[in-house]
Amino acid sequence: MLIGELGEEALLTQLRSLFAVTSTGVPVGVGDDAAVIDIPPGRQMVWSTDILVEGIHFLTPWQTARQLGRKCLAVNLSDIVAMGAVPGYALLTLALPPDTRVDFVLELCQGLCDLAVEEGIAVIGGDSSSSIEGMIISVTVGGLVPADEAVLRSGAAPEDAILVTGYLGSAAGGLKLLEQEAAPEVYPELIASFREPRCLSPVAQAAVAAGVTAMTDISDGLSTDLSHLCQESGVGARIYRSRLPVHPQMSTAAESLGWDLESMVLGGGEDYGLLFTFPVASAEDAARHIAQSSGVKVTVIGEITTGRDITIINLDGKILPLAAQGYDHFVHRGQPG
Amino acid sequence: MLIGELGEEALLTQLRSLFAVTSTGVPVGVGDDAAVIDIPPGRQMVWSTDILVEGIHFLTPWQTARQLGRKCLAVNLSDIVAMGAVPGYALLTLALPPDTRVDFVLELCQGLCDLAVEEGIAVIGGDSSSSIEGMIISVTVGGLVPADEAVLRSGAAPEDAILVTGYLGSAAGGLKLLEQEAAPEVYPELIASFREPRCLSPVAQAAVAAGVTAMTDISDGLSTDLSHLCQESGVGARIYRSRLPVHPQMSTAAESLGWDLESMVLGGGEDYGLLFTFPVASAEDAARHIAQSSGVKVTVIGEITTGRDITIINLDGKILPLAAQGYDHFVHRGQPG
Repeated sequence: MLIGELGEEALLTQLRSLFAVTSTGVPVGVGDDAAVIDIPPGRQMVWSTDILVEGIHFLTPWQTARQLGRKCLAVNLSDIVAMGAVPGYALLTLALPPDTRVDFVLELCQGLCDLAVEEGIAVIGGDSSSSIEGMIISVTVGGLVPADEAVLRSGAAPEDAILVTGYLGSAAGGLKLLEQEAAPEVYPELIASFREPRCLSPVAQAAVAAGVTAMTDISDGLSTDLSHLCQESGVGARIYRSRLPVHPQMSTAAESLGWDLESMVLGGGEDYGLLFTFPVASAEDAARHIAQSSGVKVTVIGEITTGRDITIINLDGKILPLAAQGYDHFVHRGQPG
Repeated sequence: MLIGELGEEALLTQLRSLFAVTSTGVPVGVGDDAAVIDIPPGRQMVWSTDILVEGIHFLTPWQTARQLGRKCLAVNLSDIVAMGAVPGYALLTLALPPDTRVDFVLELCQGLCDLAVEEGIAVIGGDSSSSIEGMIISVTVGGLVPADEAVLRSGAAPEDAILVTGYLGSAAGGLKLLEQEAAPEVYPELIASFREPRCLSPVAQAAVAAGVTAMTDISDGLSTDLSHLCQESGVGARIYRSRLPVHPQMSTAAESLGWDLESMVLGGGEDYGLLFTFPVASAEDAARHIAQSSGVKVTVIGEITTGRDITIINLDGKILPLAAQGYDHFVHRGQPG
């Protein structure tokens, strides 16, 4: 059945029932003009929003509907946890062509609901509309943070160590495999990085507990996200190519398929890892501790410097400027970012 | 210049600068992974979201970019104020075709910014993307309400009087004039109702102060919004056709242009008035008081009943069931709702 046949009211009734499990304890959830939530004393609220557009951020063959639903929430959570906050609330807006299959929409919402339940997030509202072309999925997520303890991009200081979680460029590798239809089964880790970004709550909270000084998520590629962090902190940075965590499947795929590995590792979007800084004296200990408590790979990749230059020391020892390679949605098309 | 030429980073820099005026005093506004806001003690937060899709909710010739920007925020505010809350925060997401003109986008954002400043709303974040077809504008708005004092749809009780603000069907009339390119200058009030929905904060707050029992905004048409209110309250309703506030320009336009006035008054969307209930003993006084303090027309149109039937007493005295005529985005296209 298509949603143009089912109708909006019937779809909303099904979704309301689906998401009810997430919002027990919420004073007013889906169904009134707006949702009402309780705020414990001593907390600030943190809010962020991300949109995924079919044909820009995703194509339906690239993942199952359920994976897509999880991802729509996961990419939003990454912004909230990168503030050191605990995500708690989500609003979901769907604009769908009338010929969208109902089971696709329900599966997508089930995927989002699954992750919401795992992470303790209440889906408290949203909106729906038809669209002229392609699905549009807009998610807004809210979280709570102890007052004045949000971890900003602006807290990095010279000599702080720079750390990243997970691997760099893997999601860009996974996307390229899907775009090129190039033997995705040979590189399951890359495909998984693109399809199923993991939730970073445990690693972010471990970083907070260990005294992180600045933090951001790696959604636009290391070079871009590092440049934003440095800009907000008024500092420079030096990173070492030899230290950058590159998954073995990424190196192999790049070599076999003739990819530009460097630009994908430095500029590839959607890794949804964390980039953060620690005072140099405690960085190695912190990295070990965070990795142990969260089960996520944590790597020291360089250090914050005075001045504003961001440089990379290449494998041959040459020092080069690291230009932000961020993806521009309006200038390019057909690739996520 | 087109935004595909300007680029996302440059556009975001301009928008960040534009919206800075709205968010003084916000701990962390636009520019980090997420925004951080303070919550005064004794308050709950209220959140709602609405999406406007070009070709579904609007066409660019129907209004100026600035009017469209105001409206994108206004339609969201109406949900927040209908909870008895004071709106305070907004997130704005734009998905735009690369051939969108930069000046159109800046004007749209200026319109939204104008209303944000007037209403004391901080624009604290958002997202941007290209779109495949048409502009998509998704706004999420948050507000504050004294704990446990949100006004729900579920508070109506038998014998409560039913009141509405403003006129019914005027926005639907304005839309029809624009669609038919039928002498809009002859019916300026109808055009204005569609293009420039007024902000309902003062009238909603006056209703709260006067002891309103249930409240919702009229966005989907009286019949649909009344049916939602009755459903949530577990009651029925009886309204009187003779009491429904219809603007003189609406009656004239319907007669000259051969419109189905009844269906537009009962089912026309986007009026963005308020529908609320009061104990019958205080209703007339409350209506007068609210109208005086807010400058908005307030009309008693009927009463809540026991049972679940919703009926209308027509001009000839006949009692008819009032069916919800709500607009279904997925089944129909090309008309807002």
